[in-house]
Amino acid sequence: MPQTSTSLPRRRLLTGSASALAAVGLASFQSHALAQAAPAAAPAAKPLPGFASFKNADAVIVHSSTTIETKRSAFGTSVITPSNQLYVRNNLPTPPESIVADRDAWQVQIAGVKQPRQLTVRELKSMGLETVTMVLQCSGNGRGFFPSKPSGTQWTVGAAGCVVWSGVPVREVVKALGGVADGLAYMTGTGGEVLPAGLDPKSVIVERSVPVAAMQDALLAWEMNGEPISLAHGGPLRLIVPGYTGVNNIKYIKQLAFTAKESEAHIMSHGYRISPPGSKGDPSQPSVQEMSVKSWINSPLPEDGAQAPGLVQIHGVAFGGMNGIKGVEVSTDGGKTWKAARLVGPDMGKYAWRQFVLQAQLPKGSHVLASRATDDKGNVQPETRGENQSGYNNTSWADHAVTVNVA
Amino acid sequence: MPQTSTSLPRRRLLTGSASALAAVGLASFQSHALAQAAPAAAPAAKPLPGFASFKNADAVIVHSSTTIETKRSAFGTSVITPSNQLYVRNNLPTPPESIVADRDAWQVQIAGVKQPRQLTVRELKSMGLETVTMVLQCSGNGRGFFPSKPSGTQWTVGAAGCVVWSGVPVREVVKALGGVADGLAYMTGTGGEVLPAGLDPKSVIVERSVPVAAMQDALLAWEMNGEPISLAHGGPLRLIVPGYTGVNNIKYIKQLAFTAKESEAHIMSHGYRISPPGSKGDPSQPSVQEMSVKSWINSPLPEDGAQAPGLVQIHGVAFGGMNGIKGVEVSTDGGKTWKAARLVGPDMGKYAWRQFVLQAQLPKGSHVLASRATDDKGNVQPETRGENQSGYNNTSWADHAVTVNVA
Repeated sequence: MPQTSTSLPRRRLLTGSASALAAVGLASFQSHALAQAAPAAAPAAKPLPGFASFKNADAVIVHSSTTIETKRSAFGTSVITPSNQLYVRNNLPTPPESIVADRDAWQVQIAGVKQPRQLTVRELKSMGLETVTMVLQCSGNGRGFFPSKPSGTQWTVGAAGCVVWSGVPVREVVKALGGVADGLAYMTGTGGEVLPAGLDPKSVIVERSVPVAAMQDALLAWEMNGEPISLAHGGPLRLIVPGYTGVNNIKYIKQLAFTAKESEAHIMSHGYRISPPGSKGDPSQPSVQEMSVKSWINSPLPEDGAQAPGLVQIHGVAFGGMNGIKGVEVSTDGGKTWKAARLVGPDMGKYAWRQFVLQAQLPKGSHVLASRATDDKGNVQPETRGENQSGYNNTSWADHAVTVNVA
Repeated sequence: MPQTSTSLPRRRLLTGSASALAAVGLASFQSHALAQAAPAAAPAAKPLPGFASFKNADAVIVHSSTTIETKRSAFGTSVITPSNQLYVRNNLPTPPESIVADRDAWQVQIAGVKQPRQLTVRELKSMGLETVTMVLQCSGNGRGFFPSKPSGTQWTVGAAGCVVWSGVPVREVVKALGGVADGLAYMTGTGGEVLPAGLDPKSVIVERSVPVAAMQDALLAWEMNGEPISLAHGGPLRLIVPGYTGVNNIKYIKQLAFTAKESEAHIMSHGYRISPPGSKGDPSQPSVQEMSVKSWINSPLPEDGAQAPGLVQIHGVAFGGMNGIKGVEVSTDGGKTWKAARLVGPDMGKYAWRQFVLQAQLPKGSHVLASRATDDKGNVQPETRGENQSGYNNTSWADHAVTVNVA
């Protein structure tokens, strides 16, 4: 198992988790811990897993049976990422198809409200309706650009997409149940995955807490991109917390609880923490939650081969996490000089990404193309990544730059 | 062949066309003329044709190998219609897959400009980039509601969808080629379908003219909903004329010409005309081009079965054709009284549709649900359809009403 000199304490922890999983016959099982323990694999053409067989194999990179990335070259300029190209990252094995056989019968327990209740999707559908477009991005998107080679899936840009969700606003459900019980500061979602036997449930269950304020824009969603949410993406019901990284958007949600404290599940208490390099995750460190301003170029790319000299439309995507996008600059000289790009296509709200384009003349030679976004609060995408042990939240424009040849 | 007493002159014409097609071995061939001559078939589960095998069979009605409708119950609330649910209506057999083998090599002739040129898709991609969301709707959508039972596909609401297109603005291409030559009033697009041998090309070619002003928002598009345009939807290159009915959006476009007169192709001169009942199409009648304000309800529907009494979210779609949507009213009593619905989800521009929702209490009984949209120019969706021989442009809110039972 490859390791750096800084990873020893982490490795001891992970080896323990992996052994526990192996002991219960889940050697191929993708808990957060095991995904992190696996060596970084070189991209290879693996088959699509059955639950994701609807994906376009030409548009994705299959890292493992639970981690599938959109190819950078497959992001078009249509704002919305089609479902068959959207990334997948599951922390547990996908539940059986039977849970989407009668979608409206799926039940979710609403707790920590004045009148707690079990509600079916059928009931939720009568309680309200909203549609939100948002960037869904894995916390580890961009991990592959960390020179420290953190363990875990080596995502570059494609563990992200912009998708449309429909469902009932959480605030409407809460209002109908009398409001949040007094003094509860967190909204905690619990996934409905089948937990492997023989392990402490807390060590594997997908349960995440976000500040209660995130309730305002959150949905209990049953539709994605115009279709009932597929099993791959969390159907029949998923908690959508706009602006928060993927893991906070609980799939197959079976409980939505307002709680006094954050969940004690391992995935919350120790997983997805911004840990200093060489340290392991603990509850004192910042949790990976709200996304920050970020952009990248999707065309041209080195994999397109040499470009002919002349006019080129440099395009890509930009998003602000919790904020809308004010503008994007593009550099064709590795960041020495910048020009304002043009935003194209519809603005689908502050949680969506924008497409940007800069028309440029590229003479013969090698060109380092970079993009740098500014959100509507004035936050500018940084040049450098924030170093952390697990390779989370990489927003560095330098890391996302591409070098193209014009010949 | 069923016919009404008013259809005799038309029938004579069509019988001639159908015989001509049969003579060249194209008995199953779906020219405009033949589709109109075919008797209205009861919906039946036909297999998806090969070129449309990516469609979700559960979400569509296959009328024929070239006419596929989205089920009313399949329209969700996510604004964008996913590609695998979008309707298909081809006027000629689909070209071979070989034309999308090297998409960038596809050529289009630009004529009627000061410097006419043949351009490849590769060249077009360097010339500009824009993204537009628009309602694509077949001219005959709603034909199935005409009591006169016009011949042709009996579409109800599903020969429409809202999709995202990316390509180069036509105005940019024209500008690069010196501008439109003097005195040319039309923009005429010609499809690249293989024409059946033995017929006068003008009788079958797909070639349509629109006023030159439509150039301003038109695209030569290579991408739909984030993917290269499928063969089913006109790839590798399609002319997109926002606000105009489907037939004006030329698939597999091989020539874009600015012309002094409208095309003399039959599909332009006699097809797609608003003909008085009992008459046949001729060039003196209005052509089916710009769409008008329209809406319909997608949930609840009679096919959902009896509803439980109580709160229901009545939702549907509304669009203004050339204009944005100002508002939508919903009636639960067949149009006697109306309430303002709420517009939900992102506004993707004036050519896109909006989702609307009205929360209503429905007691036990039978309820006639209707929606009525108003565009931002103040045009109100009419109660009645405009009668015409071929069943085009049905925007009647009464025709689109649904009756649901609450028990």
